[in-house]
Amino acid sequence: VDTLDVLAGRLPDGAVSTDAGLLRDRAIDSWALALLRRCRGDELPVPAAVIFPARTEEVATVLAWAGEAHVAVIPRGGGSGVCGGAAMPAGAAGGAGWVVLDLSRMNQITAVDPVSQVVTAGAGVRGDQLEDALAAHGLTVGHYPQSIAASTVGGWIAASSAGQASAGFGAIEDVLLGLVAVLPQGGILRCRPVPRSAAGPDLRRLLVGSEGTLAVVTEATLACRARPAGWDWLAYGFGSFPALAQGLRDAGRAETGAAVIRGYDEADAQLSFAALGHTSGCVALLGFPAGPPGLAARKQAASAALERAGSTGPLDASYGEHWWQHRNDAVATYASIMGPERAFGPGVIVDTFEVAGLWSDVPRLYTGIREALAAHAQAVLCHLSHVYPSGSSLYFTFLVSGADDRDAEPRYLAAWAGAARSCAAAGGTLTHHHGVGRLKAPFLAAELGPEGLDVLKKIKMALDPGQIMNPGVLLP
Amino acid sequence: VDTLDVLAGRLPDGAVSTDAGLLRDRAIDSWALALLRRCRGDELPVPAAVIFPARTEEVATVLAWAGEAHVAVIPRGGGSGVCGGAAMPAGAAGGAGWVVLDLSRMNQITAVDPVSQVVTAGAGVRGDQLEDALAAHGLTVGHYPQSIAASTVGGWIAASSAGQASAGFGAIEDVLLGLVAVLPQGGILRCRPVPRSAAGPDLRRLLVGSEGTLAVVTEATLACRARPAGWDWLAYGFGSFPALAQGLRDAGRAETGAAVIRGYDEADAQLSFAALGHTSGCVALLGFPAGPPGLAARKQAASAALERAGSTGPLDASYGEHWWQHRNDAVATYASIMGPERAFGPGVIVDTFEVAGLWSDVPRLYTGIREALAAHAQAVLCHLSHVYPSGSSLYFTFLVSGADDRDAEPRYLAAWAGAARSCAAAGGTLTHHHGVGRLKAPFLAAELGPEGLDVLKKIKMALDPGQIMNPGVLLP
Repeated sequence: VDTLDVLAGRLPDGAVSTDAGLLRDRAIDSWALALLRRCRGDELPVPAAVIFPARTEEVATVLAWAGEAHVAVIPRGGGSGVCGGAAMPAGAAGGAGWVVLDLSRMNQITAVDPVSQVVTAGAGVRGDQLEDALAAHGLTVGHYPQSIAASTVGGWIAASSAGQASAGFGAIEDVLLGLVAVLPQGGILRCRPVPRSAAGPDLRRLLVGSEGTLAVVTEATLACRARPAGWDWLAYGFGSFPALAQGLRDAGRAETGAAVIRGYDEADAQLSFAALGHTSGCVALLGFPAGPPGLAARKQAASAALERAGSTGPLDASYGEHWWQHRNDAVATYASIMGPERAFGPGVIVDTFEVAGLWSDVPRLYTGIREALAAHAQAVLCHLSHVYPSGSSLYFTFLVSGADDRDAEPRYLAAWAGAARSCAAAGGTLTHHHGVGRLKAPFLAAELGPEGLDVLKKIKMALDPGQIMNPGVLLP
Repeated sequence: VDTLDVLAGRLPDGAVSTDAGLLRDRAIDSWALALLRRCRGDELPVPAAVIFPARTEEVATVLAWAGEAHVAVIPRGGGSGVCGGAAMPAGAAGGAGWVVLDLSRMNQITAVDPVSQVVTAGAGVRGDQLEDALAAHGLTVGHYPQSIAASTVGGWIAASSAGQASAGFGAIEDVLLGLVAVLPQGGILRCRPVPRSAAGPDLRRLLVGSEGTLAVVTEATLACRARPAGWDWLAYGFGSFPALAQGLRDAGRAETGAAVIRGYDEADAQLSFAALGHTSGCVALLGFPAGPPGLAARKQAASAALERAGSTGPLDASYGEHWWQHRNDAVATYASIMGPERAFGPGVIVDTFEVAGLWSDVPRLYTGIREALAAHAQAVLCHLSHVYPSGSSLYFTFLVSGADDRDAEPRYLAAWAGAARSCAAAGGTLTHHHGVGRLKAPFLAAELGPEGLDVLKKIKMALDPGQIMNPGVLLP
């Protein structure tokens, strides 16, 4: 009996698919390099099957089977990852021995507890579905990644997601109260939802950023808050990136309750606010959820901090409204560049590199990474996307243009290698919220050190001795 | 050669002590049962030595030696733990094969970065020392546990500490940006300080709550904030515990920036505010760090939420000032009851049980645990000590009175067993911030489930195959 038939026999009808189009579709995620390879016609390895569990117990059945059959499992949420965390390895000859575990049928909102303001949802619930369901209760999780319409609750946990309003609403670990996950040997881990616990190392937190290498999250309980009726915006101009960074740092520390705090260097501002006729200077953007007490005083304090840091003056509030309206457009833009449309033509690859560091390291991270990328890229933009009292993320967008699609690949990889080296040298972390995937796994040792990498590998071996969980992702 | 002599030969002079008084002192922490046993004259096991490393590399030397010599190591911060996390096991015959690793000489503030507002400190730095040093820079970590003058930076991480102002300033995991730790086999783990990272499961977070079972943290980098010039207080009365809980829940969700949010049931209020002549009703207490924009509006919003929940009306602001002034007195009171003074006489044991749960579980946690404790205890008080949008901690204080010190022990243990069962049944976690130690290890399986416990045990075995790190603590 074929081993896939064995699995199919243990699952409901229709749970195991070997449809060729589906295999091809689920063989990669949204990693630019894989998209480029597909565009240029490379024969990419596809999995032997795509499996659609509908219940936690079915996931347990799949993992137990995978252990017996020595099959590697790639858990998949919305496929919106940009680092190859849900991509087949390039070297997997034909893909035999690999299956994709697609969680999209685990898309039930299990419960909304209005007293505690928490929601329990299946791992496959997409962000837009989650928010639609919560809107009916006047609630929001406040987790708004750019990929919200394409990414899932389980993916957020696996990839250590942070939404665009994380300065106010927290990143995924701040709202993750409980979860259900299937362990590699088929056991079911249940972490009860509580606001905080000191009962040992937090197993919820262990799975945040684990990228499907340690377990498959099947359900999560997330903290919500009252849904804001609207947003108030502040936008300020800055003549230089250092002044912009200082302004955002000080505004972010001013206890204003701004949930969105962003800053664009001149190149990124020109692109991001082109529709408003923005031609020069950096842009600081702060978004305040409507309703908190003392909002006028809060906005005034933020303005004062920005002005003290040397702002060239306030910009029109339309900057904020424009950004809010178009905040997720980049997803479609990216797809039009890296997809069959090839909006910029062949030979062009666009990607992002988002790092984080302490404020004292931000200037070096900015100049160092920009230079490293510019050595291979035709355009480099940067914005500060998530601001903390202690530091910030820096979100670089870069465009590499080769003679053709084949020429673009080594240029792209050289840009990555240089940028990763520069990030490590300046004390940054090489991902704030996109994760590691296959793309950044080779650079992880430089960040964690041999001992840190060894700790992760030992944990991986202890929980997944058969090495069935997403091999090659995260850990080199 | 005696194995301790081997170790002494590898360390600076004076690093290994076998002074009898010191061994006796470091054999236990502040766990009530150990204090009772000492008071009644039990012969408690003492370690073979107390080791005082002054540098990370010396800690590595100690752990490498312990692995070779098959000696168990109990890492020790300030000894303020109340669950036996730094206590010799009762059954360790004579204590041969056990040493205490006392980190009190690792008490240097390594660096203050005023640009990033972060501080790097040795694991043995006490909270009061840390705050004194930061005050000179106008900064504070804002981590104010009741034990602040007795507990250490390393202990905070190991025990998953949360300070009294955590509603505003976060718990230890929220301010922990980087760390250095020694792994059981002597390797040195360095997690660089960054505001956030998605580079795999967070190894910083793995050590939070690990209670010395996975590694020894030797240095940490913590986020700071501007030191508030003072505090503003609101106090409100409530006629019932459910109304109090609802009021705190709603005030906590009102985006007011209150950093201290506490609520006392009637019995706890009578004790806590006796000096103010408080005789009846529950008390809600909110503390606002001075200086945020719109403070008046914020306080008004908090008041409105408390009034809507059915407050019996505002209380004098002296409630807040009194609490702030005396917030750490319980440490001395506890010592006077459980120490040689025996303020309440022999046969009396006072302890605390602090749990957490979702708001929808808070009523059941309150009544269930109170009843379970009251079945064995002569007095049970409760306050909500840490309030979240999704739930709250419940901090029970209970007094067990036996015919004598021997009679008190089984009563005390029965109270614990009943309370832990009741907590699990109501969906709570059996510790919000005190940790597990030896006291609660037997109850951990009921909370984590067999799979959760198995995950922790596998991680423990993978990182500490020689099982030298604090055996018997945390994991049963």
